[in-house]
Amino acid sequence: MRVDGRAHDQLRPVTITRNYIKHAEGSCLIEVGDTKVICTATLEDRVPPFMRGGGKGWITAEYSMLPRATATRNARESSKGKVGGRTMEIQRLIGRALRSVVHLEAMGEKTIWIDCDVIQADGGTRTASITGAFVALVDAMQKLVESGTWKQLPLHDFLAATSVGVIGEETLLDLNYKEDSTATVDMNVVMTGKGKFVELQGTGEDAPFSPEQLQDMIALAKAGINQLVAAQKEALADVPLTFADHVAEESHV
Amino acid sequence: MRVDGRAHDQLRPVTITRNYIKHAEGSCLIEVGDTKVICTATLEDRVPPFMRGGGKGWITAEYSMLPRATATRNARESSKGKVGGRTMEIQRLIGRALRSVVHLEAMGEKTIWIDCDVIQADGGTRTASITGAFVALVDAMQKLVESGTWKQLPLHDFLAATSVGVIGEETLLDLNYKEDSTATVDMNVVMTGKGKFVELQGTGEDAPFSPEQLQDMIALAKAGINQLVAAQKEALADVPLTFADHVAEESHV
Amino acid sequence: MRVDGRAHDQLRPVTITRNYIKHAEGSCLIEVGDTKVICTATLEDRVPPFMRGGGKGWITAEYSMLPRATATRNARESSKGKVGGRTMEIQRLIGRALRSVVHLEAMGEKTIWIDCDVIQADGGTRTASITGAFVALVDAMQKLVESGTWKQLPLHDFLAATSVGVIGEETLLDLNYKEDSTATVDMNVVMTGKGKFVELQGTGEDAPFSPEQLQDMIALAKAGINQLVAAQKEALADVPLTFADHVAEESHV
Amino acid sequence: MRVDGRAHDQLRPVTITRNYIKHAEGSCLIEVGDTKVICTATLEDRVPPFMRGGGKGWITAEYSMLPRATATRNARESSKGKVGGRTMEIQRLIGRALRSVVHLEAMGEKTIWIDCDVIQADGGTRTASITGAFVALVDAMQKLVESGTWKQLPLHDFLAATSVGVIGEETLLDLNYKEDSTATVDMNVVMTGKGKFVELQGTGEDAPFSPEQLQDMIALAKAGINQLVAAQKEALADVPLTFADHVAEESHV
Amino acid sequence: MRVDGRAHDQLRPVTITRNYIKHAEGSCLIEVGDTKVICTATLEDRVPPFMRGGGKGWITAEYSMLPRATATRNARESSKGKVGGRTMEIQRLIGRALRSVVHLEAMGEKTIWIDCDVIQADGGTRTASITGAFVALVDAMQKLVESGTWKQLPLHDFLAATSVGVIGEETLLDLNYKEDSTATVDMNVVMTGKGKFVELQGTGEDAPFSPEQLQDMIALAKAGINQLVAAQKEALADVPLTFADHVAEESHV
Amino acid sequence: MRVDGRAHDQLRPVTITRNYIKHAEGSCLIEVGDTKVICTATLEDRVPPFMRGGGKGWITAEYSMLPRATATRNARESSKGKVGGRTMEIQRLIGRALRSVVHLEAMGEKTIWIDCDVIQADGGTRTASITGAFVALVDAMQKLVESGTWKQLPLHDFLAATSVGVIGEETLLDLNYKEDSTATVDMNVVMTGKGKFVELQGTGEDAPFSPEQLQDMIALAKAGINQLVAAQKEALADVPLTFADHVAEESHV
Repeated sequence: MRVDGRAHDQLRPVTITRNYIKHAEGSCLIEVGDTKVICTATLEDRVPPFMRGGGKGWITAEYSMLPRATATRNARESSKGKVGGRTMEIQRLIGRALRSVVHLEAMGEKTIWIDCDVIQADGGTRTASITGAFVALVDAMQKLVESGTWKQLPLHDFLAATSVGVIGEETLLDLNYKEDSTATVDMNVVMTGKGKFVELQGTGEDAPFSPEQLQDMIALAKAGINQLVAAQKEALADVPLTFADHVAEESHV
Repeated sequence: MRVDGRAHDQLRPVTITRNYIKHAEGSCLIEVGDTKVICTATLEDRVPPFMRGGGKGWITAEYSMLPRATATRNARESSKGKVGGRTMEIQRLIGRALRSVVHLEAMGEKTIWIDCDVIQADGGTRTASITGAFVALVDAMQKLVESGTWKQLPLHDFLAATSVGVIGEETLLDLNYKEDSTATVDMNVVMTGKGKFVELQGTGEDAPFSPEQLQDMIALAKAGINQLVAAQKEALADVPLTFADHVAEESHV
Repeated sequence: MRVDGRAHDQLRPVTITRNYIKHAEGSCLIEVGDTKVICTATLEDRVPPFMRGGGKGWITAEYSMLPRATATRNARESSKGKVGGRTMEIQRLIGRALRSVVHLEAMGEKTIWIDCDVIQADGGTRTASITGAFVALVDAMQKLVESGTWKQLPLHDFLAATSVGVIGEETLLDLNYKEDSTATVDMNVVMTGKGKFVELQGTGEDAPFSPEQLQDMIALAKAGINQLVAAQKEALADVPLTFADHVAEESHV
Repeated sequence: MRVDGRAHDQLRPVTITRNYIKHAEGSCLIEVGDTKVICTATLEDRVPPFMRGGGKGWITAEYSMLPRATATRNARESSKGKVGGRTMEIQRLIGRALRSVVHLEAMGEKTIWIDCDVIQADGGTRTASITGAFVALVDAMQKLVESGTWKQLPLHDFLAATSVGVIGEETLLDLNYKEDSTATVDMNVVMTGKGKFVELQGTGEDAPFSPEQLQDMIALAKAGINQLVAAQKEALADVPLTFADHVAEESHV
Repeated sequence: MRVDGRAHDQLRPVTITRNYIKHAEGSCLIEVGDTKVICTATLEDRVPPFMRGGGKGWITAEYSMLPRATATRNARESSKGKVGGRTMEIQRLIGRALRSVVHLEAMGEKTIWIDCDVIQADGGTRTASITGAFVALVDAMQKLVESGTWKQLPLHDFLAATSVGVIGEETLLDLNYKEDSTATVDMNVVMTGKGKFVELQGTGEDAPFSPEQLQDMIALAKAGINQLVAAQKEALADVPLTFADHVAEESHV
Repeated sequence: MRVDGRAHDQLRPVTITRNYIKHAEGSCLIEVGDTKVICTATLEDRVPPFMRGGGKGWITAEYSMLPRATATRNARESSKGKVGGRTMEIQRLIGRALRSVVHLEAMGEKTIWIDCDVIQADGGTRTASITGAFVALVDAMQKLVESGTWKQLPLHDFLAATSVGVIGEETLLDLNYKEDSTATVDMNVVMTGKGKFVELQGTGEDAPFSPEQLQDMIALAKAGINQLVAAQKEALADVPLTFADHVAEESHV
């Protein structure tokens, strides 16, 4: 049995509170056990310089932790004057993952900024960020559908993420911080609602892992992500979600 | 009547939720109308280099806003690579204000870090930060009293803050964002529970103000701060608060 | 009696040397006792990006100290790679204070850069900067009047500043460095020639202050600022100063 | 057939030139097709602050590209004043991967700095860096064995890396730049000589991938890495390589 | 006799390998003894902001060392977040020196970026950079002549550089690192093919030098530079080099 | 005749005002025509980390210009967040030049910080800085002699600097800004009182120069520096200056 009494294939309780921040076009508070992340989505009517004139949209993400989200206080990156490697890695991951389910060519030259701010951390903050950011993204996109700017949501699938790992002989789903610290293998998995891989990042810094362990971890992750997508669907129950495999480029005005 | 229906001398609703972040030694969420700030207090067993060997303690503060706390998204200071002038001014104010009610000489060589993170902004974020930070500070200090490290709280009074301003001919208490944008005079006032001034920062960039207007603003601020201190007392009802005018330097072990 | 023999309500000797730097459109060296500040005003034919197209002008200020202006050498902010909180606070104050007596809407889209460089410091550098900067500003503006670019000075009043403080039981005007270090309360006051408040920044970090002490400090500051304005008038005796309450927006060509 | 005529499961030609830089304790030039990386290993007799006193060693890596390693010139990160997200991600990956085959506890408090500088880029620079860095690492470590500082190499396996990807329907090994630009799925794989996974980083930003595609890519990567390890063995033929599963902590003096 | 057996007026062996980096418009590896520098030249179809609209071209240079080019590892300037004084001095020197033999007015609004990256250092890296950069510059310029963009090379002479110094009583040509460390006087000389001075930078930090020593050093440098220009001519033997004293401004299309 | 009526071999008027800044151990205002520089020397009782334990002293210099020292306003380097290449080059030059006449081994582990702040610029700011800094250095050193810390001044000669240049066919001494802008050759020369070279930095970016021109410039510079040293001697008339060729290492206590 695990430190918090869960079965090896059991997620922590997941809560998604939509419209958590009144100013944002889309926002939620996602809680996965004691990990709590505020996710917001902001619409901007232009794209970054390297994309101008291409007619496509862009999704970009930033990630941060409050200094006291963790057991000991972390210095702010603004005070240190630079964004650390871990933060950059995570925000690049979040942006890339979200873009994989968006029809950028159907957005027109708009950017959606995703902000994931961890207010309390207990493991799995990057995967919780992805799962929550998807919900904020849908709400922001839906605003443009409702205003008539877009004819339909430029999305082709759900997107959620979780972590899996190996502790001793056991393969575990959704590691909390204590588990994460003792795991010899740690893998983050991002999948679509239809069960395809978007990102797979496994690292065995403390002990290389075998192909069999890889299979076990993937199976666990897939089951967990199915439940996370179910939680997203429930949270977004009032949004008329229709995902198109292909979206006409003229779907934005 | 004001934009949100308040009387000219009426505060917005104030809510203080203690122990909001599980890892911090002291923490609260303070809500003043739609302004919401997470305040944490972190204990550290040493003081900054310039104070080492002096036997005294230190209180320092950092302040930040989530990018989407405001109506339009603000770039993160970590991404810009430097902390802006407004942020520095505010965090210097918060630290200075809190230190004014602390017996630093009774703390021993410890630092308490105050973090004020605005998750939603609607005017008065710096004054709400001070009012909330005081509560987080008490909780963190009380931990050291309970553990026997300190014999008593090294505090000599309550501390709270609010803003006042002039719009047209009227003097108003606790400006929200919309009011703040149209005010010609803006003043932040920090006072102790006993009604003494700790900070007074008035600026009439758009219209210089007269001595009479100053008196009116001070009277309004004082009444508002009394109510904020009452809210702090209620929130801290279970803490045995005793403030000493003088604290023996040996009160810490 | 005070450390330098002054009465409690006595300013230090004030000298203003105009046209101190040959390249600047306006400049002076202001000496307040041993505090010496070079103030320059630079005309620029555009406004910052956030103001473009608005038809109004802008005044902005920068403040710095030479490394050896003080008793011990201070590292340059350029070497440290960032501007500190104290500097930012002061330069924001100087800019804000000057803008309060300027008809920005009558300037056209021009910026006036104010630079205050402290070459020797003995307390009161920020208030001396404001008093000196006003003189440099007038000279730079007068150049545009003389060249026919402006029909009249876009100013509505004089502007000067001083500090007051509390040491023991006494309230003192114009603190020098030694006094400033022992004062329990420190207040900077910026007023117009007509006696209205532009900025009031009082801080009682070491001891909160009472409403009565506030009144005493304000009275002292007012008397001191009257003398500083008199010194400005004398220094600017050859400039035909006419301040208008309202300036037609077409007063610039 | 591929743009450069290779079969789908064929590596580009690999050349490893040891002792390429005379000053470094270990160094090589690794060429994988037109990708050329100078890898050096530097011994330092201390560990970073966070590891002091723990008795263990550390391996850390830095990665950079010459500005004209690529088809268009990239601005230097030193000129931009900060290290970008991509660079950080890669250097964290290289360090983590190398540490996975090192008995850190057998190194004593020493750091080995790995520098990977890409002088010409044609896809796969991060995986070439890992493969080359392993050779430089062995040479630097061997110096300490030869000098008697260490009784044996604190290594437990070979380590090499390659990339695989999907273009259209095909799964390809060791993508060059042109292929990398058109691939919908891109995966970097780091494996040990015994065929265990150290890192697996797959991303399907342009098209999520199926479990079957994952299997194909893993099989290709494994075959490629076997050949890379063979190239390392050949290059290091004169070094008496013995890898121990466990190394006594006292193996360093 | 010198540490490496050379006569006092003898250069180290010089090798210039052209087209060393396949992506660059011009490139070479220059080796002067154990000093090895990769020089590239990059064409850009615009000039920096301060030159726009002037119709002239620009040559700018950047210089860097790999961390392990030297006997002990140097921290990367990108990691330190700023370019050091020595680097700036060198890259300003390289740019200035190259511009002195270029008819900027005949280039049109183009920039040529020179990058000098030292992969192995043994003294004289800045002078080797200049000598090598000239070769890369010629190759890049020749591309524009061959494509018909320019009618002729906008160059008026060869350009090469070496160092001279004083050790004890002796004046030496082309100091290696060991010699450079013990020299009391160190002078870098940049000359044209026709024997005119472009830069002369002598420093006697450890011992001021006399006019006679200056004459000796200049004579040695001149002889050395003649040999370096001969090496450039040999390396560029296949390029139809014609230098014009004056180039018509219309020589570019 | 020159723009300001001087002969080709005539310096501008030189004024040196000692003890210009009351806090500094040594200071002066040097005026060379319209170029005005405040030079200060600060004593510090330790050396930089790289020199600790070596028993020697150190001289280091920083240089800056006030934003409005020049005809158009220059942005502050503190606001830009980094020190530019020109500034670095100059401050490295000033420090190196001063060290050349100091017996560092006779200073003990002390640093003297030289600050040169240009308050008005009209050409030749770096050479005026060196000439003035030498005077400030003597005054600061003399303080340690008077206090008995040092038995004698650890100096072996005077030090002064000037610029020379070529305009058209003429060689000119001590260029002002207007001349400097049109000169094709520009050379800064630093010499000792005994007429030896400390630094020679000639650049012919706009036109390479011949050995004959070099001789002319050197002769002019030498004559000018003799006059500058005479001005230093006059300014320091009351200081008992004795320069020793060798100073016993035990000359400091």
